[in-house]
Amino acid sequence: MVYITRKFHFSASHRMFKPELSDDENFTLFGKCSNPSGHGHNYILEVTVAGEPERGIGYVMDLKKLKVIVDDALIEKVDHKNLNVDVDFLKNIIPTSENIVMKFWEQLESKINNNHRKLYSLKLFETENNVVEYKGK
Amino acid sequence: MVYITRKFHFSASHRMFKPELSDDENFTLFGKCSNPSGHGHNYILEVTVAGEPERGIGYVMDLKKLKVIVDDALIEKVDHKNLNVDVDFLKNIIPTSENIVMKFWEQLESKINNNHRKLYSLKLFETENNVVEYKGK
Amino acid sequence: MVYITRKFHFSASHRMFKPELSDDENFTLFGKCSNPSGHGHNYILEVTVAGEPERGIGYVMDLKKLKVIVDDALIEKVDHKNLNVDVDFLKNIIPTSENIVMKFWEQLESKINNNHRKLYSLKLFETENNVVEYKGK
Amino acid sequence: MVYITRKFHFSASHRMFKPELSDDENFTLFGKCSNPSGHGHNYILEVTVAGEPERGIGYVMDLKKLKVIVDDALIEKVDHKNLNVDVDFLKNIIPTSENIVMKFWEQLESKINNNHRKLYSLKLFETENNVVEYKGK
Amino acid sequence: MVYITRKFHFSASHRMFKPELSDDENFTLFGKCSNPSGHGHNYILEVTVAGEPERGIGYVMDLKKLKVIVDDALIEKVDHKNLNVDVDFLKNIIPTSENIVMKFWEQLESKINNNHRKLYSLKLFETENNVVEYKGK
Amino acid sequence: MVYITRKFHFSASHRMFKPELSDDENFTLFGKCSNPSGHGHNYILEVTVAGEPERGIGYVMDLKKLKVIVDDALIEKVDHKNLNVDVDFLKNIIPTSENIVMKFWEQLESKINNNHRKLYSLKLFETENNVVEYKGK
Repeated sequence: MVYITRKFHFSASHRMFKPELSDDENFTLFGKCSNPSGHGHNYILEVTVAGEPERGIGYVMDLKKLKVIVDDALIEKVDHKNLNVDVDFLKNIIPTSENIVMKFWEQLESKINNNHRKLYSLKLFETENNVVEYKGK
Repeated sequence: MVYITRKFHFSASHRMFKPELSDDENFTLFGKCSNPSGHGHNYILEVTVAGEPERGIGYVMDLKKLKVIVDDALIEKVDHKNLNVDVDFLKNIIPTSENIVMKFWEQLESKINNNHRKLYSLKLFETENNVVEYKGK
Repeated sequence: MVYITRKFHFSASHRMFKPELSDDENFTLFGKCSNPSGHGHNYILEVTVAGEPERGIGYVMDLKKLKVIVDDALIEKVDHKNLNVDVDFLKNIIPTSENIVMKFWEQLESKINNNHRKLYSLKLFETENNVVEYKGK
Repeated sequence: MVYITRKFHFSASHRMFKPELSDDENFTLFGKCSNPSGHGHNYILEVTVAGEPERGIGYVMDLKKLKVIVDDALIEKVDHKNLNVDVDFLKNIIPTSENIVMKFWEQLESKINNNHRKLYSLKLFETENNVVEYKGK
Repeated sequence: MVYITRKFHFSASHRMFKPELSDDENFTLFGKCSNPSGHGHNYILEVTVAGEPERGIGYVMDLKKLKVIVDDALIEKVDHKNLNVDVDFLKNIIPTSENIVMKFWEQLESKINNNHRKLYSLKLFETENNVVEYKGK
Repeated sequence: MVYITRKFHFSASHRMFKPELSDDENFTLFGKCSNPSGHGHNYILEVTVAGEPERGIGYVMDLKKLKVIVDDALIEKVDHKNLNVDVDFLKNIIPTSENIVMKFWEQLESKINNNHRKLYSLKLFETENNVVEYKGK
């Protein structure tokens, strides 16, 4: 079993809030992350796939193919977007990194998994200091 | 003359657009940066001050004092904010990194300069790959 | 299960030596790390907590709360300190990264763990090139 | 159990190709990575060893000794080399990161493992964005 | 005057040698950098342009346009190439970073300069530790 | 004129204090940096030399030779040392980064300068966020 990882970048804005609460109540719960006009991040996403290197080639998966899959399924849809309003598959959640990364997993898993390889981990850096990882269970 | 630099971080959202143009015209001019709901960044700001180290102490300027000045004058006002609508001194400009850094200079210069030291450079990283620097003239 | 990580920085000095040995014997054992007046590092500590995102909020744990806990329990006590003499809970050990990180675990575990989350890993970077990780067993 | 990691750097060139195929067929399979005169990378290798800190000392393994072992067994043999032709233990494989890291494991494992510690992971960064990890099975 | 910088990445191999010398003489002059089968690097190139932000827009130069120019004039020609044999404008020089960066300047300057902006600096990172900068004179 | 830079690392401890003041007065002046048992840093030093590439070779200066000079003149003397007591040429100063970098310049300048090249800049990173630069005047 070998683990391959590719790093992706996207810039997006979001706001932490529960629509059923007032701005003041949201501030109590989420602090400055609930600022009504939103704020943003340069997110980094690390996608890790586990598998056996293909005989005679030596790749678990061509990283250029992994790039196309992740760009199409995720990056195109979230880069330079507002994660509260612009992304279909993020509707109806509060866009915390925890929730985002679990929704990303749902979008990616079936596009990557086959008999020889499996999506192993998604790691989302909201900032250099704040990171969330999900392994699908 | 010695140059001291301190690095600051803030997260903010913005949208590139000219209000007198349509969304389509703005997209032609600014591309995906004109997305109407905005997008965001983890900005890094490097503030450089030039001066002579104070005799008997050895500091051009205590970096803890520089931190207080820049936090009060800039970071508190832009962190977790929308740069198009939330910041008084950024009103009436398109929030490109070039325009932001020149407005930051106006806010900071008089609070730092004295007989022994001068604000020398502001360097703003919008992303790891895109940087703008201004030296006040 | 989702894993959240926050990065902390502190600067400290230490000296590798066994008090029952001479300076020469310590140099044989620890090399230049046993220099009698000590040396120092900018340490980075990554704290990872595992848990389930809270329903309706989406956080495993508010990272601002994690920051307060780790700042109070660890960073305040070790930042700008000498790890051989200034820190109560590091007394009586040689301050190798291995020993430090196991002592950090003892200080943090009960302050973080509850029914919904557990301290999962502590990763201590002595330098960019030298790293130690501990998972509590 | 504590995990210690040391980071190593080397610069090398390689070419992705199967000798039984034409240049055009190789281009179809490997893209620009099959350019006949080769290309190069600044590789980073992270070596992780798992073990218990030695009593009275506090090291899983002196990182200076780990450095000597890895420099002798690997870095000396691959730094400033062409991985297709210059390295004995890489002959007869296509030098993908997956294949390289598995061959590195074969070279290192017996030189590190003893009753108290085991080679735990090799992580090879081909670029900042492309990473491969192997844990020996 | 505002300075904008964009960072580019490319991977390439090279060999330091003077064709009129023997392999041994080249080793005396260039050390392991003269290894006959070459070695490689992940180069980083920082391109800085100086100018005044365009009125009503706020860009010195749209960084997406700068990216197209540099990709076409340089990156396409050197990425995944051997700098000794594959690149027209590097023929007849020893591919040290100093020589490379001066040849890059010749390729770029006329494509960037106009009445409002000038190529200001090219900074080439051969490794994280070794950097060369050229400002055109 | 081409500018070449090499990066060096060293770990050291120091304490900010004026010997003629009490511990309390030093705390007022220098804050936690005056902690009597000292603290430490992983310093990074960037040495920049300006010159013309040597004809037929293409180096301003062989970076391996620059490394030997800086290792001998500086790094050997400060790595794993206490900058208040262990380093001859730092005696009688308060070891602020400003003072250190000016003393480093005195040690290096004559060993690097000749008819073809000059020491151009010393940049000292005390932490990732705090940097001091000196250009010799």
